[in-house]
Amino acid sequence: MLRISSLSASRLHDLRKFSNVIRRGKSTSNKVELTQVRYPKLKRGGFATLNDRHLTTFKNILPGRVLTSETDDLELFNTDWLRTVRGNSSVVLRPKTTEEISEILKFCNQEKLAVCPQGGNTGLVGGSVPVFDEVILSTSLMKKIDLIDTDSGVVVCEAGCILEDLDNALKDKGLMMPLDLGAKGSCQIGGNISTNAGGLRLLRYGSMHANTLGLIAVKADGTIVDSLSCLKKDNTGYALHHLFIGSEGTLGVVTKVAIQCPPAPKAVSLMFLGLKDFESVLKTTQKAKHLLGEILSSCELMDLECADAVEENMKIKLPLEKMPFYVILESSGSNSAHDEEKLNTFLEVVMGEGLVIDGTVITEPSRIKSVWHIRECIAEALLRDGYVYKYDITLPARNFYDLVPFFNDKVKEAGAIRCCGFGHLGDGNVHFNVTSSEFSYNLLGLIEPLIYEWTSKHRGSVSAEHGIGLKKKEFLKYSKSEAAIEVMRGIKSVLDPNGILNPYKVLPSIAE
Amino acid sequence: MLRISSLSASRLHDLRKFSNVIRRGKSTSNKVELTQVRYPKLKRGGFATLNDRHLTTFKNILPGRVLTSETDDLELFNTDWLRTVRGNSSVVLRPKTTEEISEILKFCNQEKLAVCPQGGNTGLVGGSVPVFDEVILSTSLMKKIDLIDTDSGVVVCEAGCILEDLDNALKDKGLMMPLDLGAKGSCQIGGNISTNAGGLRLLRYGSMHANTLGLIAVKADGTIVDSLSCLKKDNTGYALHHLFIGSEGTLGVVTKVAIQCPPAPKAVSLMFLGLKDFESVLKTTQKAKHLLGEILSSCELMDLECADAVEENMKIKLPLEKMPFYVILESSGSNSAHDEEKLNTFLEVVMGEGLVIDGTVITEPSRIKSVWHIRECIAEALLRDGYVYKYDITLPARNFYDLVPFFNDKVKEAGAIRCCGFGHLGDGNVHFNVTSSEFSYNLLGLIEPLIYEWTSKHRGSVSAEHGIGLKKKEFLKYSKSEAAIEVMRGIKSVLDPNGILNPYKVLPSIAE
Repeated sequence: MLRISSLSASRLHDLRKFSNVIRRGKSTSNKVELTQVRYPKLKRGGFATLNDRHLTTFKNILPGRVLTSETDDLELFNTDWLRTVRGNSSVVLRPKTTEEISEILKFCNQEKLAVCPQGGNTGLVGGSVPVFDEVILSTSLMKKIDLIDTDSGVVVCEAGCILEDLDNALKDKGLMMPLDLGAKGSCQIGGNISTNAGGLRLLRYGSMHANTLGLIAVKADGTIVDSLSCLKKDNTGYALHHLFIGSEGTLGVVTKVAIQCPPAPKAVSLMFLGLKDFESVLKTTQKAKHLLGEILSSCELMDLECADAVEENMKIKLPLEKMPFYVILESSGSNSAHDEEKLNTFLEVVMGEGLVIDGTVITEPSRIKSVWHIRECIAEALLRDGYVYKYDITLPARNFYDLVPFFNDKVKEAGAIRCCGFGHLGDGNVHFNVTSSEFSYNLLGLIEPLIYEWTSKHRGSVSAEHGIGLKKKEFLKYSKSEAAIEVMRGIKSVLDPNGILNPYKVLPSIAE
Repeated sequence: MLRISSLSASRLHDLRKFSNVIRRGKSTSNKVELTQVRYPKLKRGGFATLNDRHLTTFKNILPGRVLTSETDDLELFNTDWLRTVRGNSSVVLRPKTTEEISEILKFCNQEKLAVCPQGGNTGLVGGSVPVFDEVILSTSLMKKIDLIDTDSGVVVCEAGCILEDLDNALKDKGLMMPLDLGAKGSCQIGGNISTNAGGLRLLRYGSMHANTLGLIAVKADGTIVDSLSCLKKDNTGYALHHLFIGSEGTLGVVTKVAIQCPPAPKAVSLMFLGLKDFESVLKTTQKAKHLLGEILSSCELMDLECADAVEENMKIKLPLEKMPFYVILESSGSNSAHDEEKLNTFLEVVMGEGLVIDGTVITEPSRIKSVWHIRECIAEALLRDGYVYKYDITLPARNFYDLVPFFNDKVKEAGAIRCCGFGHLGDGNVHFNVTSSEFSYNLLGLIEPLIYEWTSKHRGSVSAEHGIGLKKKEFLKYSKSEAAIEVMRGIKSVLDPNGILNPYKVLPSIAE
């Protein structure tokens, strides 16, 4: 049994959400197949195996904050949100401070115990759960907000803060988080930074590289690397914090961060538009960038199959009739009259030119939230089909939707339920998803590695925002040169010479 | 003699500008003191000394593109723009391709020849010139623009492209460079990236970390590391290009870059405002951020002593009467009527509240350029006093101007001509400058290390945008923890194990 009493309220909330998904899914009666079974080529590294002495030390460092498989159900810590991979760890450590993490890692490094750092466990590439029996190091109890400086717009907080909680705390001070994503109710800022999370507003506010001012990370040997600058400009030495951003816990464990937050906009509007073909989608996007200019804060796409999944699996009704494509545009500005005028001009043009068939403009905050929810729950809606083959590709705008017609017939003939595209149109980042009732090697083989070869041919990225994790590490070569991968290995060897941090992730296996 | 005929037109332009400064300056009759004389504690590393065999190899790799002290005047390549440091190199290499740079570095690494990569040589911390006899590797002949993609707003170009040339090329396509700085007529994009250049519009468009999509760099051993992604989102592996951004040529030589460029604004306005005290400056800045919101694109400050230097040394008349402080605000937007209304509201408020005493609003492009020139030429105006002690500090907004009153009396009593502050108010980045007729150890000793201790106490950065170079490396510790510096050394040892790339820069000396 998981000791519910010892978990924080917010983590409880996550777990309940999680359990709902498990209950509602079609093929969830059994546990997910162990990663080591599903990926038989993966070999466990030469790490130590957890013993009683290790456990005693952990319990001394973290009194009352060590969960073990003997007394607790660790399934939720071992299984990813998508229910596609499952580790076999028998211990979860829940530190509260940077110093405790330092002590734990120092010990693990001495003992050659492998460690899987875990935030909200909402990652989509198998990066946030163990592959074999790695010690799980959860940041869930590190939720303190140290500072919100309204003058400079900086928030300093611990890695375990939930994104949505941070955004709510900032809202009270006239600020907002520069990122927003579907998992905001569960994902943690440490994980957002470690995976360079993108999301719905990257178009306007940029990536975590643009917004992270500094951070504290703990190296594999326990050394605390304090790069917690709170300054917008600080050119003192190498860009160390950028190295930890997006390195998925393989170079260090991020424990505290400083984020530059934009002022909360005074006026926000959302447009939910229906369009007849992708050509119209492209033209509408260009018009939006041109006519909305600096107030455009989001530009998202979903196709009809995504809409069907939301209606069928989530029982949510869309605000428009069936259309081949839906575009969601958000504007955020400092003057509602000006913004409204810009929106009206834009709508006149796109309706007048027949680019947009139907649409609705929403300014009422709770309505905005419920329309955003449609977009945000697509991932969950697709998951409820059973199993999702999930791809997160950046492509030039004109190729954004090509993957769907390219794969549709092939995968449908092989039993796929849906083949669809949605995502961050304004940034060229498409989420291409195929669903089936349960995992099938046959379907997987139809999609991979073809999709990566195709992406590489179009000079796209095989992972736009989800990262590499476990599932894409052998496909890194399609987006990174051999020399670049060699430099990555060199950096890994300096920061984590024993390779204990999140092993089997990010870096491709070395050919034998 | 410098072989003028072999230099490109643009480089010629730079050299002429440079010569003007040299002629006009008060203490420029002699060469600048050699760095090894001025900094007697610096010891030459155990590198090889250039010999005829080396020269023959260089001439084979770069036929007609090797300058030597025997036949050419290399003073301009050996001396920094501020005329504060001078190296003693006897060779300048001028490659045209990444492959040539690869061949050169491979050879230098094998031979243990130290190399100083050089762009436009406009750096202000002694990072862009040799310290002893390092081989100078100039990117000045690498000026090709490979691509301007108007759909995605991406420019791909070689490292030697001059910033202003790039901006002009983009303007024709409805785009702009996301950075702008006083040295734009000479500085090169490779140098901008290698130093993470900031400048006048960072407030709106972010740093080079926010805008650089990818790059090609050559490692010390000649390996070409191709991370030239042109995609806004690409989470495939470690953020290697961010590691080269701001590493000042010590980790690799940047040869090609991809930059995300914003659309050129349809409406630009400039306000030149006079204010009576720093309290009014702070309040005006807050009002600007609040009322101009998303259209604010620059927020700069200069004090009266800066204004005096511009009027006296550059013979440029300011558009307002004498005031203790001047604030320059720029707005850039997509709708001139909306922007004008926002500006009017802002002016009504700040004039009504007595924060701004006098001011002028300019919308005519050539007038905007000439008013910007006032701000941009402060550095040159101060240099014409003779010698400049230059500090580039980030501080919390409320402490932005404290350095000037703190140091003013001390340095004036010791013979300083001016003690002044200007810079990027909106980003908290103050340029604190003291001038004297010639270099004085006494004045230097009054300012350093006190200024760094003071900055550290106020949790500021000892280098906001200029970088560390040679001059600040011993002060890095005031902004970076020992553990962080240790990680920097580890990364340096992986990418450049022989330490041939820009030695004596960035990393502090190791205590003996």
